[in-house]
Amino acid sequence: MPAFEREMLVRFRHCDAAGWVFYPRYFEMISDLVEDWLEDGLAAGAPGLFHQRRILTPSVHFTVDFLKATHYGEHLTFRLWTVNVRRASCELRIEASRQDELRMRVKQVLVFISARTARAIAIPPELIERMQRFSFDAQAAPPRARKARSRAKE
Amino acid sequence: MPAFEREMLVRFRHCDAAGWVFYPRYFEMISDLVEDWLEDGLAAGAPGLFHQRRILTPSVHFTVDFLKATHYGEHLTFRLWTVNVRRASCELRIEASRQDELRMRVKQVLVFISARTARAIAIPPELIERMQRFSFDAQAAPPRARKARSRAKE
Amino acid sequence: MPAFEREMLVRFRHCDAAGWVFYPRYFEMISDLVEDWLEDGLAAGAPGLFHQRRILTPSVHFTVDFLKATHYGEHLTFRLWTVNVRRASCELRIEASRQDELRMRVKQVLVFISARTARAIAIPPELIERMQRFSFDAQAAPPRARKARSRAKE
Amino acid sequence: MPAFEREMLVRFRHCDAAGWVFYPRYFEMISDLVEDWLEDGLAAGAPGLFHQRRILTPSVHFTVDFLKATHYGEHLTFRLWTVNVRRASCELRIEASRQDELRMRVKQVLVFISARTARAIAIPPELIERMQRFSFDAQAAPPRARKARSRAKE
Repeated sequence: MPAFEREMLVRFRHCDAAGWVFYPRYFEMISDLVEDWLEDGLAAGAPGLFHQRRILTPSVHFTVDFLKATHYGEHLTFRLWTVNVRRASCELRIEASRQDELRMRVKQVLVFISARTARAIAIPPELIERMQRFSFDAQAAPPRARKARSRAKE
Repeated sequence: MPAFEREMLVRFRHCDAAGWVFYPRYFEMISDLVEDWLEDGLAAGAPGLFHQRRILTPSVHFTVDFLKATHYGEHLTFRLWTVNVRRASCELRIEASRQDELRMRVKQVLVFISARTARAIAIPPELIERMQRFSFDAQAAPPRARKARSRAKE
Repeated sequence: MPAFEREMLVRFRHCDAAGWVFYPRYFEMISDLVEDWLEDGLAAGAPGLFHQRRILTPSVHFTVDFLKATHYGEHLTFRLWTVNVRRASCELRIEASRQDELRMRVKQVLVFISARTARAIAIPPELIERMQRFSFDAQAAPPRARKARSRAKE
Repeated sequence: MPAFEREMLVRFRHCDAAGWVFYPRYFEMISDLVEDWLEDGLAAGAPGLFHQRRILTPSVHFTVDFLKATHYGEHLTFRLWTVNVRRASCELRIEASRQDELRMRVKQVLVFISARTARAIAIPPELIERMQRFSFDAQAAPPRARKARSRAKE
């Protein structure tokens, strides 16, 4: 199954004094990606969920590996899959690559909550179904993901 | 051994349209905390490392749990411990609490690299020694950390 | 003469606890716009200027009016004109509108400096010529700009 | 009359690929400063205004001069005065200096509005009175402000 895919340009505002993407800005890119996925991948529309249905989708978990630095002016390809869709939460896998080189690998868990009560609510059934179209199939994972070396092992 | 500790006010710029801390802003707080730890906890000075010694400390890994939403105007207590200090990298544990309630728990791995070559370099020995003063002792972990409920389990 | 034009979606990361664009995020949008103008309008490429020619374009002046609040999920049309192109600096006029309603009006002054010396340098002549293609002609200003009411007069 | 004064450290998150403060981050510093002024200077408390009284204080105007670049690790002294206090709006003058060197000069206009109606409301009378304690007296302006050279004149 194909991932939800989006290109992003590394902009001046993303970069730190070393000229590399500063990690809080990577999380801003992730926020944009998930917003676009809700809008274009699920036809849900984060602003619509927020304004009309008063649904929020805060993140409750991240596991993130930054495998290699990314520089100002580079283009990244973001891919997003669903790994586990539960009643009120959803686990995503996200990868950002430059050409064929993996730069960041993310596990993110979102919960659906009511803006009124701040309590978890069931994901609307039509969204659950659409989320499953982006289901991650481990067999289909790009082989480069397994070869990527982490700088964390030094 | 005591953690490195710092109070932070949740400011308007940290909050999203729900009035809660937006997760990229949590990572900005973590960046500030680590900067203060280098400066005040290790007497290393991130600007000094950067300007004089041309050492950078990018993050290569995060595992983060957001246990409960934090609102505009609340005060958070951040605590930082070292869990594992290696030749060129350092694993940190960070917790942010409001009063006795845990709001965020973080594992972060930093690497020390040369700004000139972008390659890992050995952490200066005097810093390794000082880092160990903040070593995390699992026995001493506050019991509330074990009781905190995650919203992710819904 | 036509302005350089770009659509931008107001994203979750732009908005504050009131659900409106937070003003520092407007300046991030301006930064993106000017970057796109250098790249697509002037064929100069801010990353190329930065990486290859070691030219930076810091801002030295802003005059900004926020005429009406902009909400999460709205689309803004940004327009950029040059008002005054000097040897080493350039005055821009920027407007952001939703449909025909002006939301923000900006005067920005950029200077061209050398990243090596941090001193002003002459704008490359081919850029000066291309900048003039976006010259602001007061006659051509959209009439709505004159009707916009500012909330500042209360 | 003395200004409201606050020290700020230029942090890694404020800086761009040149190692200088990126202008949207200056506006984040201004947001923090005004928040501290409401809290500590006016005893109003921006979170309190927001949560209890449902008052917001959006900015409707900025005039800003960046007189000299500021680097990672430098300390800035911010000073804030009121220039004009009207029924529902307030004009501020803000300066940021390093030691005796002026780095940024700002005119900012805030309006007080109701979060419920999004319409301007009268500034609470006790705040008007306290705002006047920070009134800017042109005679008392520091002479260095007149000597500062702008890079905009190139």
